[in-house]
Amino acid sequence: MPTPEPVEDDVADFTAVIPAGGMGTRLWPLSRASSPKFLQDLTGTGQSLLQATSERLATLVGDRIIVVTGARHEDSVRRQLPQLSADNFLVEPAPRDSMPAIGLAAAVLERRDPEAVLGSFAADHLISDLDVFGDCVRQAVVAARQGSLVTLGITPTYPSTAFGYIKVGDPRRVPGAPGLRHVDAFVEKPDAARATTYLDSGQYLWNAGMFIVKATVLLDLLATQHPKMVQVLRAIAAAPERLSELWGSLAKISIDHAVAEPAAAAGFLVVVPASFAWDDVGDFASLSTILSESAEQPGLRILGDPALVVNRGATGVVAAGSGRTVVTLGVRDIVVIDTPDALLVTTREHCQDVKQVVETLQSVGREDLT
Amino acid sequence: MPTPEPVEDDVADFTAVIPAGGMGTRLWPLSRASSPKFLQDLTGTGQSLLQATSERLATLVGDRIIVVTGARHEDSVRRQLPQLSADNFLVEPAPRDSMPAIGLAAAVLERRDPEAVLGSFAADHLISDLDVFGDCVRQAVVAARQGSLVTLGITPTYPSTAFGYIKVGDPRRVPGAPGLRHVDAFVEKPDAARATTYLDSGQYLWNAGMFIVKATVLLDLLATQHPKMVQVLRAIAAAPERLSELWGSLAKISIDHAVAEPAAAAGFLVVVPASFAWDDVGDFASLSTILSESAEQPGLRILGDPALVVNRGATGVVAAGSGRTVVTLGVRDIVVIDTPDALLVTTREHCQDVKQVVETLQSVGREDLT
Repeated sequence: MPTPEPVEDDVADFTAVIPAGGMGTRLWPLSRASSPKFLQDLTGTGQSLLQATSERLATLVGDRIIVVTGARHEDSVRRQLPQLSADNFLVEPAPRDSMPAIGLAAAVLERRDPEAVLGSFAADHLISDLDVFGDCVRQAVVAARQGSLVTLGITPTYPSTAFGYIKVGDPRRVPGAPGLRHVDAFVEKPDAARATTYLDSGQYLWNAGMFIVKATVLLDLLATQHPKMVQVLRAIAAAPERLSELWGSLAKISIDHAVAEPAAAAGFLVVVPASFAWDDVGDFASLSTILSESAEQPGLRILGDPALVVNRGATGVVAAGSGRTVVTLGVRDIVVIDTPDALLVTTREHCQDVKQVVETLQSVGREDLT
Repeated sequence: MPTPEPVEDDVADFTAVIPAGGMGTRLWPLSRASSPKFLQDLTGTGQSLLQATSERLATLVGDRIIVVTGARHEDSVRRQLPQLSADNFLVEPAPRDSMPAIGLAAAVLERRDPEAVLGSFAADHLISDLDVFGDCVRQAVVAARQGSLVTLGITPTYPSTAFGYIKVGDPRRVPGAPGLRHVDAFVEKPDAARATTYLDSGQYLWNAGMFIVKATVLLDLLATQHPKMVQVLRAIAAAPERLSELWGSLAKISIDHAVAEPAAAAGFLVVVPASFAWDDVGDFASLSTILSESAEQPGLRILGDPALVVNRGATGVVAAGSGRTVVTLGVRDIVVIDTPDALLVTTREHCQDVKQVVETLQSVGREDLT
């Protein structure tokens, strides 16, 4: 796959950072610790989520991509992205959540270019409408160059209870970024009633966890709360051979908690409202909205070979991944995830609880299945 | 397994006939054409339903048992019943439903003993309370010796919509058969409301398809509607080498339609109300009432290795038959039947429709799975 070059590179100072971590426990047994969702083709397109993310960003930034992944998945990640070179990868000796991962990329980037702008984009989210995505990122880069911490907030299309929300504030006037707004607050995942209120108000966006910011600004913001972490990250960037030695001292913390929420509370975060289609593929309910309805088995969304599925009157999502025939009969919103060593049967309404199944398996000594 | 001998043989003229046929389509994919439910251990006891039926009857009749089965299953049936000899088996060249099967046994028995009484007991039903069962059969044999066609009707314990019913009439006074009643009518499977009315009235029994009758009386009753069939059956009994030649001319018909319903309509059928526990193991709802709740996974009834099942908040029945781990999450009355080549997922309320799944598989060219 040759890396597409942007036609006119108006974001030459901008690098895309892809944290490729997280197990995707709510997609068990499709997603496993050894083969997390970002490495998998969950859309039936032949591309893993990581490959789709990398390709999408390459249309904007060419090969200015840094993939940050764990040692456990390094080989798989490199194999899936053969068009990238060694400089495109940072390998965490152990998982430390998103802040150390993105922070390390920031520290590496500010050494290359003190004016560097970075954008962090999860390896396992789905985005369509690439033109709209590109336009939003460009606006965000314009604002980031002026020193802002910028996020992309997704215009909600239904009252999701699975996502956090961003309450938007007044417009922020920046030439070249006409959509820019202040952020009033981050809001936790709501209940169904509240989600409907948010949707109807037009004042809330989904928090998609995408941040665009100058590398130096990100590290300076982080330093206000976690100065030691920033020292360590900059030390590693200055002397990469010290990575293994120093990494263990870093706290596990997400970029949301470490930087974005404090910045929002301080009125420092801005947002580009974004109308492209986005999904975090967080659970099987999410997966079922991504897959199209099967032509062969109406009512079902099928991942895998439709010839393996026979349906009579059921609706929902079936992953046919063991080679066996899966028959569904008369159940509404069923979720059947069939893999060679484990089968999950649940319904859409219980999708969020799949995480607890993984915890249960671990607690009963079946880590081999997780 | 040595054949237990009855302590006191007061039914020396009585032979048990076991029609071992039928595919058990509503138990697909546990039950297959190549391995129907009577050959299978559906109770987790280590015995197939056929073996349990044979053993239960042997306590009453010793080795006076005739198993009538199809050519396709002859080898399996003989292997499962090594305690029986060649005289205990009749093999149908092709399936013709229950009347030709039981009728052939009747024709064979009347040649051995013109006074012979037979009782037909399906190979794939479950009965407990053997003392009560034995007492009911003895009463039925007493009545049958006097020329009656006798059935055992099960006292209902819940308003089943899966069974046909028998409306009982006045007592029939026969010494030695104190429970005997006339049969007013056979009644089709009712809807739920009607089933409750039947249960509450105390006037209805489940039709369990067990008939006790003199061999000659059965054939004479059959001859009133199907004289040619009786001629053929007696011809085969007289010249067993003509079985293959003659069998194909017999109509497919059940003993209920051929004899029992006309006899009931004519006021000739009598019934022994029976309070032993009985189940036809007809579908997965039935199976779930037979299996006990899992100690390891409360809420579930598990067939197979409970160590293969992990449950969080679901109720229902799981057959773990592929060696894979089955995880159920939060679904009520779920039915998960996991076999090496096919998986069925449904709920209790759709159990009766499993038959249509088998028809669907056949219609889409997947007879290999049925």
